Amino acid sequence: MSPTPSPCPLCLDAGGLLVHQTPQWRLIRVLDDANFPAFYRLVWQAHVAEFSALSKAERSACMEAVATVERVLLAQLRPAKINLASLGNMVPHLHWHVIARFDWDSHFPNPVWGAAQREVAGGAQARLALPLETLDRLLSEALVA
Amino acid sequence: MSPTPSPCPLCLDAGGLLVHQTPQWRLIRVLDDANFPAFYRLVWQAHVAEFSALSKAERSACMEAVATVERVLLAQLRPAKINLASLGNMVPHLHWHVIARFDWDSHFPNPVWGAAQREVAGGAQARLALPLETLDRLLSEALVA
Repeated sequence: MSPTPSPCPLCLDAGGLLVHQTPQWRLIRVLDDANFPAFYRLVWQAHVAEFSALSKAERSACMEAVATVERVLLAQLRPAKINLASLGNMVPHLHWHVIARFDWDSHFPNPVWGAAQREVAGGAQARLALPLETLDRLLSEALVA
Repeated sequence: MSPTPSPCPLCLDAGGLLVHQTPQWRLIRVLDDANFPAFYRLVWQAHVAEFSALSKAERSACMEAVATVERVLLAQLRPAKINLASLGNMVPHLHWHVIARFDWDSHFPNPVWGAAQREVAGGAQARLALPLETLDRLLSEALVA
C-alpha cells in the first residue's frame, strides 16, 4: 500500500466522465482520445498503487466489474478485441483500462500506446454501433445488476 | 469462446521459457526483449480470446496467479511499478503480461509498447537485483504454495 502522493490526480477528481460508482471503484469514460471513443477506466477509489495490494475479495470485486464492462462492450460494439491494462507508471493509483479495439482503428493491431497505423476517415466515434451515452447507460445498468 | 485459429502460436508451444504450469495456466518468461528482462506472461492453457470468456472461478484463479507473480517481482526486484496487460490483438489467446518496470528502464514512464526514452548502458538484465534463474525459481515456489 503506497502513501497518497500529493496531489494524485485520481484522488483529486473522477478522471473522466463518471459512468457508475460503488464505494470500492468507479467506472469513467476517457474523454481525451478521439481515436478510442470506447475507452473506459475502472478506478479503485482508495489510493493503492498495485493490484496485489488489494485483498483477494477486493481483487475479485475489481476484476468481476472489469469483466462486466468487457462483456457489455463485446455485446454492444462487436469489437475485434478488448484490451485490458493496469499500468500506472505516471499515475500510480490503481486503474484498469478497458478499451474496445477494432480492426479499422487508428492503431490496430498495435497497442493504443504504440505507433499509429492509419487515419480513420470521419472519426472513430461515428463508426460505433450506438451512441456513447447509450453505451454508458447500458454499462451502468449491467454494473448494478 | 473463439474457435482455435490455425495455427495459434500459444496453442503450438509454450511461447517462452516455461517457469511453472498447472492444468489451467502456465507462466512463461519472455526471452525476446532485452529491454525488459523481468517480463513474464501468464498464459491460459485453453484457447479463449477474452478474459470474460472464463468462468468467475477461472478468472479468480487466473488473477490470483497474476497477483502472486506481481508480489514476487515487487519483493525481489523493488521495481518502480508493475505493469499488467491482456491485449491479444495479434494473438487472441488469453495471456497476461506481467512486467517489472524501473525508473531507469528504456521506456519508463511510457508503456513498453510506446516510445523509448533512453538507452540503458550495460543492458537492463545486469541491473536486476538477482539472476533471472533465481527469480524464476522463486516464482515457481510461490505459485506452488
